[in-house]
Amino acid sequence: MRLSRYFLPVMKESPADAQIISHKLMLRAGLVRQTAAGIYAWLPLGTRVLARIAQIVREEQDKSGAIELIMPTVQSAELWKQSGRYDDYGLEMLRIKDRHDREMLYGPTAEEVITTIFRDAARSYRDLPRTLYNIQWKFRDEVRPRFGVMRGREFLMKDAYSFDLDEAGARHSYNRMFVAYLNTFARMGLRAIPMQADTGPIGGDLSHEFIVLAPTGESEVFYHSNWEKPAALSHVDFDDVAGLQAIVGGYTADYAATDEKRDEAREAEAGDQLRQSRGVEVGHIFYFGTKYSGAMGLKIQGQDGAEIVPHMGSYGIGVSRLMAAIIEASHDEKGIIWPDAVAPYAVGLINMRADDEACAKAADDLYAQLQAAGFDVLYDDRDERGGAKFATMDLIGVPWQIVIGPKGLEKGVVELKRRATGERDELAPADAIAKVRG
Amino acid sequence: MRLSRYFLPVMKESPADAQIISHKLMLRAGLVRQTAAGIYAWLPLGTRVLARIAQIVREEQDKSGAIELIMPTVQSAELWKQSGRYDDYGLEMLRIKDRHDREMLYGPTAEEVITTIFRDAARSYRDLPRTLYNIQWKFRDEVRPRFGVMRGREFLMKDAYSFDLDEAGARHSYNRMFVAYLNTFARMGLRAIPMQADTGPIGGDLSHEFIVLAPTGESEVFYHSNWEKPAALSHVDFDDVAGLQAIVGGYTADYAATDEKRDEAREAEAGDQLRQSRGVEVGHIFYFGTKYSGAMGLKIQGQDGAEIVPHMGSYGIGVSRLMAAIIEASHDEKGIIWPDAVAPYAVGLINMRADDEACAKAADDLYAQLQAAGFDVLYDDRDERGGAKFATMDLIGVPWQIVIGPKGLEKGVVELKRRATGERDELAPADAIAKVRG
Repeated sequence: MRLSRYFLPVMKESPADAQIISHKLMLRAGLVRQTAAGIYAWLPLGTRVLARIAQIVREEQDKSGAIELIMPTVQSAELWKQSGRYDDYGLEMLRIKDRHDREMLYGPTAEEVITTIFRDAARSYRDLPRTLYNIQWKFRDEVRPRFGVMRGREFLMKDAYSFDLDEAGARHSYNRMFVAYLNTFARMGLRAIPMQADTGPIGGDLSHEFIVLAPTGESEVFYHSNWEKPAALSHVDFDDVAGLQAIVGGYTADYAATDEKRDEAREAEAGDQLRQSRGVEVGHIFYFGTKYSGAMGLKIQGQDGAEIVPHMGSYGIGVSRLMAAIIEASHDEKGIIWPDAVAPYAVGLINMRADDEACAKAADDLYAQLQAAGFDVLYDDRDERGGAKFATMDLIGVPWQIVIGPKGLEKGVVELKRRATGERDELAPADAIAKVRG
Repeated sequence: MRLSRYFLPVMKESPADAQIISHKLMLRAGLVRQTAAGIYAWLPLGTRVLARIAQIVREEQDKSGAIELIMPTVQSAELWKQSGRYDDYGLEMLRIKDRHDREMLYGPTAEEVITTIFRDAARSYRDLPRTLYNIQWKFRDEVRPRFGVMRGREFLMKDAYSFDLDEAGARHSYNRMFVAYLNTFARMGLRAIPMQADTGPIGGDLSHEFIVLAPTGESEVFYHSNWEKPAALSHVDFDDVAGLQAIVGGYTADYAATDEKRDEAREAEAGDQLRQSRGVEVGHIFYFGTKYSGAMGLKIQGQDGAEIVPHMGSYGIGVSRLMAAIIEASHDEKGIIWPDAVAPYAVGLINMRADDEACAKAADDLYAQLQAAGFDVLYDDRDERGGAKFATMDLIGVPWQIVIGPKGLEKGVVELKRRATGERDELAPADAIAKVRG
C-alpha cells in the first residue's frame, strides 16, 4: 500500500483523556477513533491488526477441534428469561425494544442462543461432543467506559461453547480450550498466565482467567516466578485425554491467582519466588455443567436410550482488547512494536527523497519486488521530510523498515532496520529481502 | 472436516413458513437458523459460504483502490440529527437508549459516521480522493421480515464511501465501484445487471441498482436481451479515467431499468429484444455530491488554499443476501449447486461403507491426500446408508463429490461426480484428484 493513497491519520500528541499507553498509542498511530462513548471505529491500520489477531484465534480454535459459526448481535429477551439471567444481568445489558415493542438486547455473551441452536439440532449421543465458537461483536453498557478499547462498550469477542455427555467429557473440552488459549496467546508474543478465577454471572464451579502481565492492568495478580519463563509451543494431540490433562496439570502446578482467589498456603510455599503484578484479562474459560442445558430444555438420547442433559462450558477471548494488551506489552517511547504475527504490514518501505527520480525509481522497484515476494508492504512514497517518515514508521510499529536514500543508492545499498531492536544494516536490496524473509 | 465431528443439522422437509426456494434450502442444508424474527444465526456451513462471499467482495474492493476499515454497529443519534436524517428514517431504524438515557441506534448505514471520521482526519487536497469501505452487520427493523436472509433484520453489508475534490472525481470513484461490482458478482457466477434507480433516503441524483435475475425477486425489471450474455471479466486499470468511463458507458448502453425508472422510448427501441423478469437487488451505488459533507462540516484545503467541500458517494453490497441470491440462481430439485468460488467445501468425500475396514482405510487415505493437495474437504465418514449420504451431499451442493465403495475399490477406482452437471467418472484416486484440480 502506498501511503500517498492510504488513510492513516497519525497524531503527534495524544488526547488528554487517554490515560494508558495502549489507548494513547492506538489513537496516535491511527488504529482507532472513538465515535461515541466507549464505541470505536477501527481505522484501516487497526482493521488489519484486528484481522490478524482474529485469524490466529480462529486457527487455534480450529486446531483444537472447535467449529466456527456466527450468532447474531441482537438477541431476543425471551431466551434470557428462560435461563433466568434477564433480570440478573443488570444495567450492563443494552436492552432494546423493536418497532413491535418486543424486548430485545444486544448480546453481551451467547450461552442462551447457542444452547437453543444446539437443542433444536442435536438428537443423540452421536451429536456430542461438540464445541462451537464465533467471533462476533458484543456490547456491554459499561457505566464508565475508559482505557480505549480495553474497557469499551462495543467489542469483538471470540466466544466458544462446549457440549458433552458428562462431566469427564466436559473437563476434556475445557482442557482443549485451556491449551488452545496458551497457544493462541503465545503466537501473539504474549505471556498469558491462566489463573483460577471467580465465575461471576456465567455461573459454574471451574474457571480460569488468562491474564497478560502489564503494569496498567485492572486486576492485581500473584504468581510463581516460573511463569516468567516463555511458554513452549509444541504439537498437541487434542484427542489425547490423558495427555491434555497432563499438560494442563503441568501448567497449573505453578501458583498463579487473582486477588479474589489468593491462597496463603501456596504463597508461603512459593516463598521468595512469589511475584506480584497487575494484569489484563484477555481470556476467560468456564465449566458450568447443566446450568443452561437444564434451564433451556436441552436433552439428547444416550447410547442406552436414556435421556442425557449435556454438560456445558463457555470460553471467551477479548479479540479487540488483545490489540491493546499486545501494545501494553510491546512498545517503547517511539511507539508500538508489533510482534511479526500480528503486524499490519511486514515491511515499511521509506523513500527518503520522493522528489529524486533515481530514488523514486529504486523505491518503486523494491516495492514491486517485496510484493512479488509475498510481503505486505506499507510504502511511504509521500513528499515529506525523512524525519517525519521515520517517526511515523516507528510510531505504527512495522517490524522491518527499509530506507532508500540517494547516498545509499550510490553505493547500491539500502538500510534495513529491525523495529524491535533498532539494529540497522546496509545491504543490497536483494539481501535486504532475503534477511526479511529470515 | 469429518462429518462425524461436524455440526450440520440438515432437514428433510422445509418449514411451512419458508416460501422462497433460497429460504427453504438455507434451512434444509443447515446454513442458517432463525433465532428471532428476521434474525439468523449462520451455522458452520453457512459461515464458510458467507466468509467466501465476503472475501470476494473484499478482494474486488481492494483491487478498485478502496481501503477497508470497520465502523461500529451502534451509532450515536446525535450524528443523524446533524445530517437531518434522524427523523426521516422512520421505524426501520432500530433506536436504542443506553443506561445514561443517551439516544443511540443500530446503524442501518454509515454515511454520518464515515463523514465524521473523514472530517476529523483529512486536512488537504492531498488526502483525497479516498474510498473507504467496511463489511459489518447492519440492522433494519423491517415491519414484516420474510424470505429468510433475503429480507431479514440483521444482515451483513459491505458499505463503501468515496470522497473527491469535485464532481468529475466523484464520477470516476463511482465508475470504479461500478466496475468492481460487475467483477464481484461475475466471480460468484452471478449475472447482475446495473439499472438506473431511485435514490431513496440516501439522496443524490445518480444511482444504479445491481439486480440478479430470479423469478422470486421482489422488483420487476426490464432489460435488453444483450444483458443475457455473460459479462467478460478482464484486467481493468482503475486509475484510467477515460477507460473506466468507456467500460461503464459500454455496459449502460443496453437498456435495463427497474419498474420505477422505465423509459418507453428505449423500450420501443429494444423492440422484440425487450425482456421482462423479476430480480433481487444485491448492490446499490449512489452519488450524492455534498449532501453529507455539507451537513457534517467536512471541508478541506484545496491546492490554491481555498476551502473545498468534498463530493461523496456511497456503495452497498448485501453480503448475506448474496448467499440467498446465489441459491435462487443456482439450484435444482435435489438442492443447492454452489459455484466453485463460494462453495463451503471444494470436495465432498463419501465413504459408502464406514463399517468396511478396506473402505475406511482408502477413504481416510484419500481424505489426507486431498487435504495435502490443498482442498477443503467435507468427509462423510458416518455410519449411515449410502443413499442418505448422497442426498446430503447433493442438498448442501458441494461442487465435486468423490464416492468410495467396495466394488470400486476392487477395481482400484473411485467415482467422481460433478454436482452441477451430474457427470460421473470412475477414476483412480490420483486421477480424481487431478481432475478436481482442473
